[in-house]
Amino acid sequence: MITTCTPEPYCRVLSGVAGLGLPPVSVGDVSKRILVGRKLRSSQLGETLLPKRIALPVFASDALSSVAYAPDEVFIMLAVAGASTYVWSWKIGLAVAVVMLTVVASYRQTVHAYPSGGGDYEVATKNLGRTAGITVASALLVDYVLTVAVSISSAAQYAAGAYNPLVGHEATVAACAVVALTAANLRGVRESGAFFATPTYLFMVSIMGMCAYGLVRMFSGSLPDAESAHLEIDPAPGWEGPLSQVALMFLLARAFSSGCAALTGVEAISNGVPAFRKPKSQNAATTLLLLGLIAVTMMMSVIVLAKEMSIRYVDPHELDRLRTAAGDALPAGYEQHPVIAQIAAGVFDNFSPGFYFVLAVTGVILVLAANTAFNGFPVLGSILAHDGLAPRSLGSRGDRLAYSNGIVFLAAMSIALIVVFDAETTKLIQLYIVGVFVSFNLSQLGMIRHWTRALQGESDPSARRRMVRSRAINTFGLCLTAVVLVIVLVTKFLAGAWITILAMGFFFLVMKAISRHYARVETELAADEQDSVLPTRVHAVVLVSKLHKPTLRALAFAKATRPNVLEGICVSVDSERTNQLLKEWDERRLDVPLKVLYSPYREVVRPIVEYTQAIRKASPRGVVAVYIPEYVVGRWWEQLLHNQTALRLKGRLLFSPGVMVISVPFQLRSSAIALEREEREEGRVHAGDLRRGRVDTNGSTWRKDDE
Amino acid sequence: MITTCTPEPYCRVLSGVAGLGLPPVSVGDVSKRILVGRKLRSSQLGETLLPKRIALPVFASDALSSVAYAPDEVFIMLAVAGASTYVWSWKIGLAVAVVMLTVVASYRQTVHAYPSGGGDYEVATKNLGRTAGITVASALLVDYVLTVAVSISSAAQYAAGAYNPLVGHEATVAACAVVALTAANLRGVRESGAFFATPTYLFMVSIMGMCAYGLVRMFSGSLPDAESAHLEIDPAPGWEGPLSQVALMFLLARAFSSGCAALTGVEAISNGVPAFRKPKSQNAATTLLLLGLIAVTMMMSVIVLAKEMSIRYVDPHELDRLRTAAGDALPAGYEQHPVIAQIAAGVFDNFSPGFYFVLAVTGVILVLAANTAFNGFPVLGSILAHDGLAPRSLGSRGDRLAYSNGIVFLAAMSIALIVVFDAETTKLIQLYIVGVFVSFNLSQLGMIRHWTRALQGESDPSARRRMVRSRAINTFGLCLTAVVLVIVLVTKFLAGAWITILAMGFFFLVMKAISRHYARVETELAADEQDSVLPTRVHAVVLVSKLHKPTLRALAFAKATRPNVLEGICVSVDSERTNQLLKEWDERRLDVPLKVLYSPYREVVRPIVEYTQAIRKASPRGVVAVYIPEYVVGRWWEQLLHNQTALRLKGRLLFSPGVMVISVPFQLRSSAIALEREEREEGRVHAGDLRRGRVDTNGSTWRKDDE
Repeated sequence: MITTCTPEPYCRVLSGVAGLGLPPVSVGDVSKRILVGRKLRSSQLGETLLPKRIALPVFASDALSSVAYAPDEVFIMLAVAGASTYVWSWKIGLAVAVVMLTVVASYRQTVHAYPSGGGDYEVATKNLGRTAGITVASALLVDYVLTVAVSISSAAQYAAGAYNPLVGHEATVAACAVVALTAANLRGVRESGAFFATPTYLFMVSIMGMCAYGLVRMFSGSLPDAESAHLEIDPAPGWEGPLSQVALMFLLARAFSSGCAALTGVEAISNGVPAFRKPKSQNAATTLLLLGLIAVTMMMSVIVLAKEMSIRYVDPHELDRLRTAAGDALPAGYEQHPVIAQIAAGVFDNFSPGFYFVLAVTGVILVLAANTAFNGFPVLGSILAHDGLAPRSLGSRGDRLAYSNGIVFLAAMSIALIVVFDAETTKLIQLYIVGVFVSFNLSQLGMIRHWTRALQGESDPSARRRMVRSRAINTFGLCLTAVVLVIVLVTKFLAGAWITILAMGFFFLVMKAISRHYARVETELAADEQDSVLPTRVHAVVLVSKLHKPTLRALAFAKATRPNVLEGICVSVDSERTNQLLKEWDERRLDVPLKVLYSPYREVVRPIVEYTQAIRKASPRGVVAVYIPEYVVGRWWEQLLHNQTALRLKGRLLFSPGVMVISVPFQLRSSAIALEREEREEGRVHAGDLRRGRVDTNGSTWRKDDE
Repeated sequence: MITTCTPEPYCRVLSGVAGLGLPPVSVGDVSKRILVGRKLRSSQLGETLLPKRIALPVFASDALSSVAYAPDEVFIMLAVAGASTYVWSWKIGLAVAVVMLTVVASYRQTVHAYPSGGGDYEVATKNLGRTAGITVASALLVDYVLTVAVSISSAAQYAAGAYNPLVGHEATVAACAVVALTAANLRGVRESGAFFATPTYLFMVSIMGMCAYGLVRMFSGSLPDAESAHLEIDPAPGWEGPLSQVALMFLLARAFSSGCAALTGVEAISNGVPAFRKPKSQNAATTLLLLGLIAVTMMMSVIVLAKEMSIRYVDPHELDRLRTAAGDALPAGYEQHPVIAQIAAGVFDNFSPGFYFVLAVTGVILVLAANTAFNGFPVLGSILAHDGLAPRSLGSRGDRLAYSNGIVFLAAMSIALIVVFDAETTKLIQLYIVGVFVSFNLSQLGMIRHWTRALQGESDPSARRRMVRSRAINTFGLCLTAVVLVIVLVTKFLAGAWITILAMGFFFLVMKAISRHYARVETELAADEQDSVLPTRVHAVVLVSKLHKPTLRALAFAKATRPNVLEGICVSVDSERTNQLLKEWDERRLDVPLKVLYSPYREVVRPIVEYTQAIRKASPRGVVAVYIPEYVVGRWWEQLLHNQTALRLKGRLLFSPGVMVISVPFQLRSSAIALEREEREEGRVHAGDLRRGRVDTNGSTWRKDDE
């Protein structure tokens, strides 16, 4: 017999709580509130789907923000052999654009084939098996950390560019920004469409506007040189003199692999398909294409303009390789500004608000990109939990502890990276894209196998044709991303990628261990026929310390379950009190026997455990039910004053087979405080809700929309 | 109907566990073991009573050890006005001796009147009321901290005296010693008679032997001068020139109140009467008298010898007040050794092993004195818990957490004092004796009232005569200790006693608050007539996530309790898994309906809470029984992987009235590890067991001995 029922809409329950007005707040609560701010409520929690115009900014900030640092890294790498190699810059940009568009085309296949939002992890697991899935998951976990570190470090550089006193303190600024972001996410950031749409569209408009204006000035011949155009670049030690063919190839490969940082975040849409409006896959694919085109346009425009404005850009640690045209050393205190800042300064040489506006929105979009990692991390955690690769409790919404731990872990790791690498984007980027390309490769491989399988079961010629075409796209994508992965590994392994691979290995082993543990437990727990045998009798004992309301309630509850035997037990540590209790017990004429366990050394737990074991021994097919009256109090220090012995006893009784422990709670008046605290916690907005399609975009209405 | 039963002797149960051989040990366990060492077992735990010859050293180390620093403080205070005031030293010693013997006589009355071992706290509470009792308890708590700080600081000075490289690092040495003592006590120190008897008797023998030999040499005229005898002492600033009568009085009062440090620890025996052999009170009184006589003899001998050997002793921070007889400054690097060290060096001028032996046993006895605080603290805690002034769980033996917290708290406070006062006994002593004399005074006052009350109900003339005599002794004691308390307050308030009073006030307020809280709860919980009303029906729900052994066991247990309604509930966060579960449920032909709660946002806790509330609403006189299958695992990280949702749910359901939560544990194989860990913990020896009469003295046999 199976029945189903749906709980009432949550919003009604929650608004009832909100109606109570300002609740009393405990001390611990106040101090926490000062730390993380007032918490947001998810009273309008509902399932609302995103139109394309909103979905684009929600998922694009990570991918688009890389235009703020990827071109810089290309120029830095090329500058190793002096400014002469800058002629290659737009060709490298073109190569990155080709890879980008190929990857976009590949993911368009993925969103059609896997509209459930599992992304690369799902593709790899379903088609290549669990090990491949775990590898992708490790890569993604590492990448979330690096997204935060790289984006925030880059944002700190822009901040220093706009406000000179921050120069030299980028690491501190970046660490503080991560802390602020962590606090905001612990507190519960309301992600809404507007939250992403405004800054992302502003960023697109300002960068594309700047580039368009710059290109107009270029063609009209009025494009000024960049502030660094008058400088010469000394080649790095070992790169002096004419380059050999091999050395040039290596240099270009390094520059190209740094430029590939522009590809990070492209995969985000494939994880967010369920949040799109119908037709989900179609809309997601369109948005993905749009994202790719915008990203490529922005990147190419920036590189071309930088080249045309004769920007000179070197590793910020090797500023001494810059010289004036006359061959003199640089003036003391020379600041090298990011490429976009130099372009903006040049293009808007007669309109300084434009310059500051470009820098401001770039900084904002970088912070937003970092925030996507904070949102994506718990989402990935819940998917992994669902598959038994992470603690299962992460799988259900609202496990505050696990969820907060995840956010704090992400923040701690990225702050560690920022501090160790002194917030230098150039160094962090060496660690960055390995993970992305590992998952690109496995995902493409999985897709190829997916189409091959699908072809086996498909006879409709037009469907087959589509599948063959999709497989061709993914095959091309695999070839290209495999080449890029090899280039990245060769050029970056010693420069830092080994750290990423080590970290991936660590996550891989942890997930393997968790998965093995769950599998072992499952085997141990598998039910067989004899497991349904009923216990022959129930021997109920009610713990009695005093004869007060909680005890009487526990007795009444125990009686209501009509056990075969029911008795009160009392551990005597003080004969005077015990006699008093026995007298009251008699006076009340409770028709339940009270057994006294003498405990000469004032132990409480052990006599009870031994007593239950003795009962169980006398009747091994029976079950012992231990009723514990429990006080429910509201303040943390009250908790210290009550229930400690009950807690210890409960923990100890867990080890006795055939014993069940029944908590009969008694709510003291102060418990109202804790109840309200609990309900406030439950009603929180969680980071990542939006991209799981769970928070509405306008914050006032909500509706359900199923596939 | 009342039945009683006594659990089997514990030692049998424990030896069964020990028989399992070397158990597997978790990582956390290993790291803790490295920190605090292998734990001791209390397998021979039994009630064994102490003969006088063992009881004396067990309770005397604190009181006797003060001879190691009290004379020094007297000389330091007198030296403020130069060496000429040293003529007063033996008169001050005599005054301290009079107070000491008076206090001893008073406590002999207490041990007869209150043989239960409650000591000053019990006397004050019973005769003067709760507030007086709490005041005494605060004083005792503060004194335990100071006993550790003063004894260990003094021990560090002796260590520096014996081994010069330690000079200047006394605070570090002392802090390390406290840490070592804490570790030993956390690990469980086996207190046995021998543990105390050997060093304490060695100390008595060596100090009394040294003094006797010194006095013999004095009378034979061969007593050499002390190493500092050739020095002159400049009076402290402001004390130059001839002293006024008032100034002299103040000086002597200060020296006297410092000398009264010798009285600390005298009250220990009054807390330990239950540990004595019968006749308990008589034996305790005799031991107390013996203790007083030995302490007075040792102190007077030391003072007289020091005076005769012309010791010059100033505050170690004012060594520049010492000059050679020629008026020159001291040679650089002059070390001022403690009084006993100087005497030993002089008396044993031709026998250096004697010198080192005296220093060594003095150091050991000081550490032992500090250890008594670690033993007394939990004992006091359990008495206070019993009276509702401390968390109740402290009252039962074996609350490891509370017990360890107490020891760590004591250690942290005393280390703080040691660091702040740089391990200078002279400064710490200013804080010390306020607390002791506060409890002396309240205790004497209580005793007077006790005898007055007793006289009202007594008609036997000889008994009345004894009581009147006792009251006279306590009255004299009160007068004397009141005068001393005033002197101490006047001379030491600004020098540090205010800190003690502040700390006492803090403890007082905390205990008051705890007591108020318990009283409030008691009122709230008081049972009335309608509390015994039985619930009309039991609606049982069993939480089902999968159909495995734990679920089947929970279902079987739930069925055995024969509720009015029984159903499984399952929160559906994944329709595929839910369908799978429903299918299995049908296949198994379980005759229990399975209800599915849909949770569109993957929340687990809330739908269940709301469902139980709905049941309760439909039948407000009924009770809802929620059965939760629980996994019992053995390793900490396994705990993270399981039960998190169950834990959260249980916490949340506590707030729902009329809901009882039943944990049905399922022991996985790894739970054996945790069970053994639990049992090892339970079998530990606890500090303070000996002075509660709970550990036998020879460690092999045990027997019971009731009053």
